[in-house]
Amino acid sequence: MRETFKEELDTVGNELVEMTRITRSAMSRATDALLDADLQLAETVISGDKTVDQLARDVETRVVELMARQQPVASDLRAIVTALRMSGDLERMGDNTTHLAKIARLRHPDSAIPEELRPTILEMCQIAERLVAKAGTVIASRDVETALELDHDDDRMDQLHRELFRVLLSPEWAHGVQSAIDVTLCGRHYERYADHAVQVAVQVIYLVTGEHAEDLSEVRARSGLMGGEAG
Amino acid sequence: MRETFKEELDTVGNELVEMTRITRSAMSRATDALLDADLQLAETVISGDKTVDQLARDVETRVVELMARQQPVASDLRAIVTALRMSGDLERMGDNTTHLAKIARLRHPDSAIPEELRPTILEMCQIAERLVAKAGTVIASRDVETALELDHDDDRMDQLHRELFRVLLSPEWAHGVQSAIDVTLCGRHYERYADHAVQVAVQVIYLVTGEHAEDLSEVRARSGLMGGEAG
Repeated sequence: MRETFKEELDTVGNELVEMTRITRSAMSRATDALLDADLQLAETVISGDKTVDQLARDVETRVVELMARQQPVASDLRAIVTALRMSGDLERMGDNTTHLAKIARLRHPDSAIPEELRPTILEMCQIAERLVAKAGTVIASRDVETALELDHDDDRMDQLHRELFRVLLSPEWAHGVQSAIDVTLCGRHYERYADHAVQVAVQVIYLVTGEHAEDLSEVRARSGLMGGEAG
Repeated sequence: MRETFKEELDTVGNELVEMTRITRSAMSRATDALLDADLQLAETVISGDKTVDQLARDVETRVVELMARQQPVASDLRAIVTALRMSGDLERMGDNTTHLAKIARLRHPDSAIPEELRPTILEMCQIAERLVAKAGTVIASRDVETALELDHDDDRMDQLHRELFRVLLSPEWAHGVQSAIDVTLCGRHYERYADHAVQVAVQVIYLVTGEHAEDLSEVRARSGLMGGEAG
């Protein structure tokens, strides 16, 4: 009975890792669709989001059934609560990629991203992919050290997000209000996507340590967790 | 034992209703802060968000303890899962109001909202408040009919959101890119806030009926739930 429970939890973990894989691929495709004004690619992202939503429901159904079948012990309960939260975050990351793809579709055959912002958006996509890949690793390994690395990557995302606004607000901006709105919304979706990936890591830390944290810097600031670093 | 369980669930329900009250007040104050460039009011919203975050954690801790103490039956499990989801939505609504307040603070002593958009923003706030108030009622009453009403209110929010973009993109727009970015981000926060309120109603419907739905229109479209309306 106990074995089955663990196996079921492993299945939930695998589904969550699968969600990170799909949302990572969606992020990559959504960005290509944005930069290259690729309508067909955008459509694959939009229609593919159903799979992520379905996986999120599968996770929810599975953990509810798990709770119903067996009295879970404290650490199992954490696994259940964090699985629900993580699937929620990953579902929202899927939504973020869908929104990006919809902006690409709306501006087709033009690109929503002006030439001078392509490198910034491309790097935002790279950071987003790195974050979700690490989130997947962390779900599988439950490694707190790796979980804490996401904080650093997310700092870079925030820098790039500010960089977008700097360009939008410079006197050289020559693409008008519509394009500024597109870029603002795109920037927000990359930033939110990254933030949800960080939240996945925060959940894993809670799962492993039982410690709640608003964000990873809070975890870092606490003593003990990083091998005796000052709190 | 059973009685205590029900009482604990009621406490969770009360905490969720309390979260709707606080996030409603925060929405009202954030909007006033935006429209009147009221720095002090903006600060109350930003510092007050801690209370919502704390309530969200209380809900989570309480339901985890509940699960640990007693084997919940199927409908209890739904109550537990939906409580976690609702507290997550309400916490994010608090975040939305904080973001609005931060935009108000950033533009102080100016208002981030140009004169001609004041009526639109004001109505968006009214709809947002109506939605969260209804969400609170629905959490307490578990009334599916009232839950379905949120869909209609949210339609109006979407209209107003589109209206914002129409004004931003009209040839008469005379406030430049910075203001367009501010309005775009504000619009998104009102829209997201409303969407989370609708999600709370969706969760209540799941709690009562056991039926999953992506949104309320999906529920409406299904037969039976509305007293035998065509599916």
